[in-house]
Amino acid sequence: MPLQTPRPQPIIAIHGGAGTLSRSHISPEQEALYHGALGDILLAAQQMLAEGGSALDAVSLAVDGLEDCPLFNAGHGAVFTHDATHELDAAIMDGASLRAGAVACVSRVRRPLRAARAVMEHSEHVLLVAAGAEAFAKSCGLEMVEPDYFSTPSRRAQLEKALASDATLLDHDASALVFAQRSTGQAPLDEDRKLGTVGAVALDAHGNLAAATSTGGMTNKRVGRVGDTPLIGAGTYADNRTAAISCTGTGEMFIRTLTAYDICARMAYAGQSLDAAAQTVVMQVLPTIKGRGGLIAVDAQGNLSMPFNTEGMYRGYARVGEAVQTVIFR
Amino acid sequence: MPLQTPRPQPIIAIHGGAGTLSRSHISPEQEALYHGALGDILLAAQQMLAEGGSALDAVSLAVDGLEDCPLFNAGHGAVFTHDATHELDAAIMDGASLRAGAVACVSRVRRPLRAARAVMEHSEHVLLVAAGAEAFAKSCGLEMVEPDYFSTPSRRAQLEKALASDATLLDHDASALVFAQRSTGQAPLDEDRKLGTVGAVALDAHGNLAAATSTGGMTNKRVGRVGDTPLIGAGTYADNRTAAISCTGTGEMFIRTLTAYDICARMAYAGQSLDAAAQTVVMQVLPTIKGRGGLIAVDAQGNLSMPFNTEGMYRGYARVGEAVQTVIFR
Repeated sequence: MPLQTPRPQPIIAIHGGAGTLSRSHISPEQEALYHGALGDILLAAQQMLAEGGSALDAVSLAVDGLEDCPLFNAGHGAVFTHDATHELDAAIMDGASLRAGAVACVSRVRRPLRAARAVMEHSEHVLLVAAGAEAFAKSCGLEMVEPDYFSTPSRRAQLEKALASDATLLDHDASALVFAQRSTGQAPLDEDRKLGTVGAVALDAHGNLAAATSTGGMTNKRVGRVGDTPLIGAGTYADNRTAAISCTGTGEMFIRTLTAYDICARMAYAGQSLDAAAQTVVMQVLPTIKGRGGLIAVDAQGNLSMPFNTEGMYRGYARVGEAVQTVIFR
Repeated sequence: MPLQTPRPQPIIAIHGGAGTLSRSHISPEQEALYHGALGDILLAAQQMLAEGGSALDAVSLAVDGLEDCPLFNAGHGAVFTHDATHELDAAIMDGASLRAGAVACVSRVRRPLRAARAVMEHSEHVLLVAAGAEAFAKSCGLEMVEPDYFSTPSRRAQLEKALASDATLLDHDASALVFAQRSTGQAPLDEDRKLGTVGAVALDAHGNLAAATSTGGMTNKRVGRVGDTPLIGAGTYADNRTAAISCTGTGEMFIRTLTAYDICARMAYAGQSLDAAAQTVVMQVLPTIKGRGGLIAVDAQGNLSMPFNTEGMYRGYARVGEAVQTVIFR
């Protein structure tokens, strides 16, 4: 059993996707870009938590930052669908009330996570998709953009390479599609094999947990495909009685095994610790159906677990009163 | 502990939605219509299971029948959205492989459950939505229809009444929207308070479980709203190691507590029986967040549980070798 601190310090953890090592040489400058982006976002969220801010606000702030950063596949810098469009998904959950909100297949909302939060706070629904989700976001006064706002030259290059290799992909097992991204040779994790999502989990000074996740999905994905990110219990879950979790990986396998909720269920019903539950789900359950990726999780005692079954995962965390930590590889 | 039969007889169970008693007088003829529809569908699925058919095929056949029957809110006879359109959702899951498929917000696929099954069997995805889901269904050769195929005069009357009462609804708690349906005075369960969904769960002679659910959602719902039906683990789940479950109710509460998967988790991790887990989820967990509705569930030993926290639920079951049973009220 982990030691239970009576009043754990608030903590924020974030991720920017999981994947394998890049085949190309990585310069220290390139790697530093990623550490810098993760570190800046953690610092801002840590500051908010130190000032008594809520876990919900901290994960919202962190995902705002990750969506705006073109290094990560969410918001600006999202990958392209097969039809050269963008379809973004996001979800947020409040561990204190079990309220949740999510959007899927939106292409005109600048910050999809804010749309998810609006669904949670200003509708009676949990999940809105496509044009209906966009109309709702607009009615809430959220910033709308032209779909090309999300486009970047490197993501377009990834799509062109993926489209060019389609014939080859048809020869593979269906799950190979997930790995269809082609490397730009500039990122620490191979963009060929990057499972792009961003997310955040937090525990605040009031003992409340929250989780948020946002993604552009996978390069060359079928229009209308929804992965685990916006599905409550699959890619995102938070419950003060157990944990807050945000996932990244081959979404379909996370949906079929309810990765995020399964950790909470193992803690609640089998008495597993956060780390035991998270490790079991990522290292044992997901591999049985060829699920690849990882997750970040915190519990109400401030325990942290960030397992992944790929070679790396952009990640980091910051406890109030301690130095910010960012890591990419094992 | 329930008695565990070494070779349990195959069983199929179905539901046609939960709700409260109708305020209007119910004639024996009206009630007989519902019993007849449920009974015919059960008989066909029971026959299929008796001949060695798979659980997947049995739940598919049953939901085909429920979708085609205008008495139930799925397929032909689906309710209208606020914009007087139809948006249908469906999901299916195979307990042997944990494969799953789902569609949401489709309006041109005659049988949404068949589209969900096509996603499971012919794509690498689990959930496709809106136009992308329809394009996929069409590419699989499924029957497409004009959206008004789903319309019936009584559903249109329900929408008109719901729209007329919008001003009143705004005075209520958000969850009241779920109860916005207005009675046509012809159904045993009050269409005012009907939580419309159809579903089926089955255990076949090979020991495999499957679950399927299909719905038109709720009258006057916001365009783009996705409820629990097509979300794996919320409204639909099947795992040979535990159970197959199909839910009906106030979808958002089922999403937030992962109703279907939670039953499996309680069985797997807490050692609860199917009935104990199902009763706890419906009678204790859902009410804490004002969740209303019910579910049908079977496990690999052939145990059956059909709890609901409303006044009635259209439901029935048939074990191979035994008489078909149909029930509406408690």
